[in-house]
Amino acid sequence: MFRSLRSVRQFNCNLWTLQRLIVDSKLHFSTSIMASSEFRIERDTFGELKVPADKYYGAQTVRSTMNFKIGGPTERMPIQVIKAFGILKKAAAEVNKEYGLNPKIADAIMQAADEVSAGKLDDHFPLVVWQTGSGTQTNMNVNEVISNRAIEILGGKLGSKDPVHPNDHVNKSQSSNDTFPTAMHIATATEVHQVLLPGLQTLHDALAAKAEEFKDIIKIGRTHTQDAVPLSLGQEFSGYVQQVKYSIERVKAAMPRVYELAAGGTAVGTGLNTRIGFAEKVAATVSSLTGLSFVTAPNKFEALAAHDALVELSGALNTVAVSMMKIANDIRFLGSGPRSGLGELILPENEPGSSIMPGKVNPTQCEAMTMVAAQVMGNHVAVTIGGSNGHFELNVFKPMMVKNVLNSARLLGDASVSFTNNCVVGIEANTERINKLMNESLMLVTALNPHIGYDKAATIAKTAHKKGSTLKAMAVELGYLTEEQFDQWVKPSEMLGPK
Amino acid sequence: MFRSLRSVRQFNCNLWTLQRLIVDSKLHFSTSIMASSEFRIERDTFGELKVPADKYYGAQTVRSTMNFKIGGPTERMPIQVIKAFGILKKAAAEVNKEYGLNPKIADAIMQAADEVSAGKLDDHFPLVVWQTGSGTQTNMNVNEVISNRAIEILGGKLGSKDPVHPNDHVNKSQSSNDTFPTAMHIATATEVHQVLLPGLQTLHDALAAKAEEFKDIIKIGRTHTQDAVPLSLGQEFSGYVQQVKYSIERVKAAMPRVYELAAGGTAVGTGLNTRIGFAEKVAATVSSLTGLSFVTAPNKFEALAAHDALVELSGALNTVAVSMMKIANDIRFLGSGPRSGLGELILPENEPGSSIMPGKVNPTQCEAMTMVAAQVMGNHVAVTIGGSNGHFELNVFKPMMVKNVLNSARLLGDASVSFTNNCVVGIEANTERINKLMNESLMLVTALNPHIGYDKAATIAKTAHKKGSTLKAMAVELGYLTEEQFDQWVKPSEMLGPK
Amino acid sequence: MFRSLRSVRQFNCNLWTLQRLIVDSKLHFSTSIMASSEFRIERDTFGELKVPADKYYGAQTVRSTMNFKIGGPTERMPIQVIKAFGILKKAAAEVNKEYGLNPKIADAIMQAADEVSAGKLDDHFPLVVWQTGSGTQTNMNVNEVISNRAIEILGGKLGSKDPVHPNDHVNKSQSSNDTFPTAMHIATATEVHQVLLPGLQTLHDALAAKAEEFKDIIKIGRTHTQDAVPLSLGQEFSGYVQQVKYSIERVKAAMPRVYELAAGGTAVGTGLNTRIGFAEKVAATVSSLTGLSFVTAPNKFEALAAHDALVELSGALNTVAVSMMKIANDIRFLGSGPRSGLGELILPENEPGSSIMPGKVNPTQCEAMTMVAAQVMGNHVAVTIGGSNGHFELNVFKPMMVKNVLNSARLLGDASVSFTNNCVVGIEANTERINKLMNESLMLVTALNPHIGYDKAATIAKTAHKKGSTLKAMAVELGYLTEEQFDQWVKPSEMLGPK
Amino acid sequence: MFRSLRSVRQFNCNLWTLQRLIVDSKLHFSTSIMASSEFRIERDTFGELKVPADKYYGAQTVRSTMNFKIGGPTERMPIQVIKAFGILKKAAAEVNKEYGLNPKIADAIMQAADEVSAGKLDDHFPLVVWQTGSGTQTNMNVNEVISNRAIEILGGKLGSKDPVHPNDHVNKSQSSNDTFPTAMHIATATEVHQVLLPGLQTLHDALAAKAEEFKDIIKIGRTHTQDAVPLSLGQEFSGYVQQVKYSIERVKAAMPRVYELAAGGTAVGTGLNTRIGFAEKVAATVSSLTGLSFVTAPNKFEALAAHDALVELSGALNTVAVSMMKIANDIRFLGSGPRSGLGELILPENEPGSSIMPGKVNPTQCEAMTMVAAQVMGNHVAVTIGGSNGHFELNVFKPMMVKNVLNSARLLGDASVSFTNNCVVGIEANTERINKLMNESLMLVTALNPHIGYDKAATIAKTAHKKGSTLKAMAVELGYLTEEQFDQWVKPSEMLGPK
Repeated sequence: MFRSLRSVRQFNCNLWTLQRLIVDSKLHFSTSIMASSEFRIERDTFGELKVPADKYYGAQTVRSTMNFKIGGPTERMPIQVIKAFGILKKAAAEVNKEYGLNPKIADAIMQAADEVSAGKLDDHFPLVVWQTGSGTQTNMNVNEVISNRAIEILGGKLGSKDPVHPNDHVNKSQSSNDTFPTAMHIATATEVHQVLLPGLQTLHDALAAKAEEFKDIIKIGRTHTQDAVPLSLGQEFSGYVQQVKYSIERVKAAMPRVYELAAGGTAVGTGLNTRIGFAEKVAATVSSLTGLSFVTAPNKFEALAAHDALVELSGALNTVAVSMMKIANDIRFLGSGPRSGLGELILPENEPGSSIMPGKVNPTQCEAMTMVAAQVMGNHVAVTIGGSNGHFELNVFKPMMVKNVLNSARLLGDASVSFTNNCVVGIEANTERINKLMNESLMLVTALNPHIGYDKAATIAKTAHKKGSTLKAMAVELGYLTEEQFDQWVKPSEMLGPK
Repeated sequence: MFRSLRSVRQFNCNLWTLQRLIVDSKLHFSTSIMASSEFRIERDTFGELKVPADKYYGAQTVRSTMNFKIGGPTERMPIQVIKAFGILKKAAAEVNKEYGLNPKIADAIMQAADEVSAGKLDDHFPLVVWQTGSGTQTNMNVNEVISNRAIEILGGKLGSKDPVHPNDHVNKSQSSNDTFPTAMHIATATEVHQVLLPGLQTLHDALAAKAEEFKDIIKIGRTHTQDAVPLSLGQEFSGYVQQVKYSIERVKAAMPRVYELAAGGTAVGTGLNTRIGFAEKVAATVSSLTGLSFVTAPNKFEALAAHDALVELSGALNTVAVSMMKIANDIRFLGSGPRSGLGELILPENEPGSSIMPGKVNPTQCEAMTMVAAQVMGNHVAVTIGGSNGHFELNVFKPMMVKNVLNSARLLGDASVSFTNNCVVGIEANTERINKLMNESLMLVTALNPHIGYDKAATIAKTAHKKGSTLKAMAVELGYLTEEQFDQWVKPSEMLGPK
Repeated sequence: MFRSLRSVRQFNCNLWTLQRLIVDSKLHFSTSIMASSEFRIERDTFGELKVPADKYYGAQTVRSTMNFKIGGPTERMPIQVIKAFGILKKAAAEVNKEYGLNPKIADAIMQAADEVSAGKLDDHFPLVVWQTGSGTQTNMNVNEVISNRAIEILGGKLGSKDPVHPNDHVNKSQSSNDTFPTAMHIATATEVHQVLLPGLQTLHDALAAKAEEFKDIIKIGRTHTQDAVPLSLGQEFSGYVQQVKYSIERVKAAMPRVYELAAGGTAVGTGLNTRIGFAEKVAATVSSLTGLSFVTAPNKFEALAAHDALVELSGALNTVAVSMMKIANDIRFLGSGPRSGLGELILPENEPGSSIMPGKVNPTQCEAMTMVAAQVMGNHVAVTIGGSNGHFELNVFKPMMVKNVLNSARLLGDASVSFTNNCVVGIEANTERINKLMNESLMLVTALNPHIGYDKAATIAKTAHKKGSTLKAMAVELGYLTEEQFDQWVKPSEMLGPK
Repeated sequence: MFRSLRSVRQFNCNLWTLQRLIVDSKLHFSTSIMASSEFRIERDTFGELKVPADKYYGAQTVRSTMNFKIGGPTERMPIQVIKAFGILKKAAAEVNKEYGLNPKIADAIMQAADEVSAGKLDDHFPLVVWQTGSGTQTNMNVNEVISNRAIEILGGKLGSKDPVHPNDHVNKSQSSNDTFPTAMHIATATEVHQVLLPGLQTLHDALAAKAEEFKDIIKIGRTHTQDAVPLSLGQEFSGYVQQVKYSIERVKAAMPRVYELAAGGTAVGTGLNTRIGFAEKVAATVSSLTGLSFVTAPNKFEALAAHDALVELSGALNTVAVSMMKIANDIRFLGSGPRSGLGELILPENEPGSSIMPGKVNPTQCEAMTMVAAQVMGNHVAVTIGGSNGHFELNVFKPMMVKNVLNSARLLGDASVSFTNNCVVGIEANTERINKLMNESLMLVTALNPHIGYDKAATIAKTAHKKGSTLKAMAVELGYLTEEQFDQWVKPSEMLGPK
């Protein structure tokens, strides 16, 4: 038994041991968990390896955990990629069945693949992103898990590769070089549709409601951060609405090329060892399984060797991040105070802001959103660099690229919802403050130009500024007009549009 | 003749001499260079300033040269922005005339604006990008130049602001806050259409011709930079063609939002001091003057406060740069040698490569292209950061943003043409070398799988690799098949697609 | 055994299942999962909240999980930050004891803090990075966990805040605004010393050993990817050694400012509510606990409002990434083949490279390293943007910044070790291939310049290139020299240095 | 006088007219501009070319203008690089003379090189950055200009290469591969010392003076942009001072590796065709000519193949940019208003802010500075990408890299001076406003904690906030303390440090 513990330790070489330690250390070294019988032997072309008995993965997966101890569990291949592989492997099995794959085998693969995409086998995918740049090891991880699970379904022995072989059956008509980019696109498109777009729409709708709610509140405008002519608070928010509206359009505009699937290109894009029609059928099946408009990529050489489609989408996400930074920054500044800031907005109070200062409430949702925005901009550079460094028939920055794109999509989507629910919907206008600032504003003098001329208007404004007085008082004092004229001519409500 | 040479030399006055003139404003006032009669006095609300007598610009322009001595002449406001302003000011004058501006004044403005957009007054725009972030000083530079030139046309006195006032007439119904972003969009769209898209199309067509020319040349594929199964050289180039095709599509997909013009929003987006219909008419006029599909921005608050449209376009340019990096890298590696590289392509020899090594020819066009690609990726980050830092009703990173977007578009367009003409069109396939590499390739063994099985095939390949032998010799020596069978089964030409 | 397997599976509930538990706060309240007795009630100034009975954290932590459902468990506050907090809280308690804090309370706090820094309480820190930008919620999470654990140690009741109050005792003389940046610096410096620098040193030493091993192997040089004059393989590797040597120096050069701790600045940098000497004593204690040269920051206003020190370090990591990209790229290209690449290096075979192509081995460690490099460059941009957006007395991109810096340090350190152990140490020179390429090289002709002149040398090279012949054969055929002269003059071994 | 004005105009020929001359090589041959006698014929190994008779450059320069029509004159090789080449070529000639180069030739080279570094021949360097990535063409441009100018000095015929040959004499013991990076380092170090460091020092000193001037002005602090406890305005500025102090240190810390010169490495780093000692002597001579601490690079392979030193320096510049963004942002927000912003600072009024709104003054210097900061961050990414993409013995992103580093150094240096002179030195504190905000602040309640307890203090603050009242009024009204007690206990001046 001591031996088995040693084995456990060796196998669970430090990264993943650390991981367990981090998440919960208690279980790992507990002798109550595994006996020596808890391993089986699997082999690949490099030799034999011990595989944990309760795991469906095989030798190539274990070998990867030994060779790539980089970064710990936060660096694992995103689960969305694994689930996307489940969908792809199911689709491939279905099409392979059409082309003659033994139906019993095909059906077992499909059942196992369903379990993968449903998230039932998530803990059988221990590999990190920092592996081979083609994602081959994750493809083999998937092949191994599905083959072993299918073997189990068919009553076989785990690790026997019989009757379901990871390469010959699960990977049939496929190569890592076309399946991994296919899974990248499926995962990305799914995340975009399930998390990002709904999140952006939620934010859009909440901002649009506020724009409507605030449409009659007239406030001072600010350009260069300085006082300017007035607009309505609703108009100000309408700018944010437009940014989010376009955010959604930008993301959607990048999707057509994400919907293109590399499957059918196999090793270098030629489709060697596939059948004519396989590519199209797989894309159609994936499309039907996901409800998204996937098609086969028109040029498989491009689809393997370049991931411009993800760079493009990442560019759209980067633009979304830019919009989010602007909106969140504005809201926190407009909500700054309560006494010494701009104070035009009252933001929801969600948590104590300070252990020292009572009553302090911070724009924490804005802060989370702007941090997300910065992260997305950084992710975008990583994606750009990875995308630019493909060589010949294969780009080998695939896992890194998809990790970053998925991270950006998820963070933006989640943060949009959090920002909406915990901030935007609860924003109130501090109308008293807004009115005060607007009425004190020297920029209202602009309305006098047509009546008394630019020069006199300027004199009023500058004198009022110097004396700390109001425009009206100064205008009357200077004898340029009467109080009644001032009230008649200076109407902020008539300064909100062209005439 | 000596005189003309002298003129050329004067004319060719180098960039850095120019810099002194432009940036060091002391020069403007140095009596050692010009007599006092060579200045006129102009004034703005801050007081009087000496303006060079031969320049159309006025006090505000001079003041900017005094306050912003940053970076020298390479940092001047891109001339494309100035020309775009010429178009915009003409359009505004035409529409203002419709709304009642004195036709004589309007016509003179239009004539002067035409000269600006035609590039006739280029040396009257000395300001650098590093000025106010709204571009106000460049807008005033344009207003001053057009007003003085129009005054001159009408027989008036430079600097008198009579009968054509820079603000009241040239800037009528406008604000820097809406005109500068309008000029940004006009300049960008024009550069995209005049330089970038034609350049990309040129490259696309040349690559497509090569893909066709090379379609029957079968070569070894490379994945992970390692030997892989074969494809045709035409197929390999078809991937590049696809990348450039999509580059064009990506740029075009970003244009609709670039076609939206802020004009009519004036100071904060409300359109204060414009007339109903002004925005639409100006956009239509600009569209008619340029032949491009400009429309008025649906939300002027967004159009002033955010420049997401340029961030988006920059993202498209970034994706184009990623494609270019891939293509140029491939071509230089495939053309590496002549003896110790991959040597599959023969690149045109354009210039001596080395002062030491005779016969050395370098892939210099690839190098220029990849440097451009890196620059565009960097520019994109600058644009992203600028775009994200707008506050309230105005983004004040405008000049920096447009400079970078224009630079990216120009560099990619120019480099595409240079790369095409000086490299792509002259690329030849080194078929002897290509054949040799392909025939020696161990990866052809893949074709034997269906006949003798994966294991025996693997044995052949591994033994051949170990012994430095050929697949055929080894297959026969191992007794797995005959020479005739090998020749029949291992046909690279049948490995180029699905079956 | 089945039971134990089940346990493992349950325990090993994957990351994304955990995520639901952690992030989706509905779970906390679901009666279907836990009986009401499994919660206790805690309160903060916003009211009461149910807290899982087996967790040490309190109301503010739970509130954060409810308000910030962004990104899932991969986005959790890096555990290094939590451990750094353990060190800081211990140091603060020790110093507070000196200044009069009840020794019983201080000791209990120190014991609990020790458990935090030892990683024993890791699963009591569920918060994600995307929270308030000051990290206040994580500071409170730490305060709550330590206070409750200290209460437990002293026999009190969890959640009672008695006798150890999270704010009054654990956070005494502190604010989130100074503790969080202190923890950022402690965590970063520790990661640099424990992971990054040892990793780089490992790589350095392995490369240096190879440079020595290869010092007598003469090979062709390549500039512009084209054939050039020779150098030794050892010389080539010495360039990599120098890059890694400087990588280490660069990281070390950035550390002095990372060693500066903000502790003692409290809320805005003034040190309100601390005691004179507190800052210095805490820094000294942290230094003593960690063995690293921490000092108190000379200017606390800068230390709270800016994180330039982390931007600077990130810049150093970015430079390291640049070096790694170069080295890993070179090694994969030099090892490309086996038949159709450059083939000068033989890289270790670590795993099967392809499911289709037997014998295919890929430079997977180079791929992991270059992906890491791209990620670090992206992280750097995120850090830069976050660092640039602080306002007034506080930068609120803290959690995002530290996450990225830690990630970069960890990935570079781990990847260096993986790359070393699984690639560099096993690299062999393919001397046969190296000799062949060098002897065929036309660039050796350079050695003839002093003997027959540049022009004749050029003729030899160009003719040999055209005819596909060797330099020697062509030189003799052209009658410029004899075979003996050629052998005497063209000696690559004498072309490796100045004379 | 009219004539002189015309001359000025010709001289001032704008940037974009110049561009046509330089880039469009058709112009060189256009008979409509110059008679045929205005050309001379020069030749390189590719054949004959017409060279403008009044230019010192030769065939290889002309060939480059024909092959690289990319980007126009703003894209020219930075003049600092040309001047650095002047210094290097002088040093090399001096050392070559020591090693036996004909003294007459050496002296003529040195004289011509002096003219280059003095800027007298600037218009003989028409090449753009987007050329070969080794900068070979610029090295040859320099060799050609110096050789022809030296020939002229010695009474020879331009273009004859006699008695001074561009390769054999001017480039003796050198290669583009080591001279260009040497010039990169000389140019960069010079720019750093002449522009950047003095600029930063200027800003530092001005901020330090303000910190001293403002040291007794107590104001409200702001964290999360929200009201917080007080600090002095001097303390706030001291944070900026610290940032600039560290900016200077960071730049200086990166310089040692920039001082390392590649000269002596020749083509691949071995130093083939140089003499032992040449490298050291050249570095010493350059050091003596420039007064900067240049040394020969300890490893020439690294010095040619990687430019990590520039990536490192660019990282320092990026950190400086981060600091500048923070400082300029703070100043513009603190100076926002005049009525509706924070209004604590009064910024100098340098120019009219608006054509519509009288009295509007914008923080334009802050805007220029923040635009510069964004540009530097973008430049840094370009440098990073270029630096990471070197292959084998040569990095071929040299011109792009140096262009960006020089641009960053120049912009930061210039902008620091402009920002200092036109903004910082003129900043005044709006003490009335500062006092008002501070006295109204609810956060002063923190001072009551020790006297009446956190809970009562909180009640005071929250009630005052709700009722819009002052702390004192509310404290008295609630009966917690007397007016006298409040005045005695709540003293902002005692909240500025630890006790």
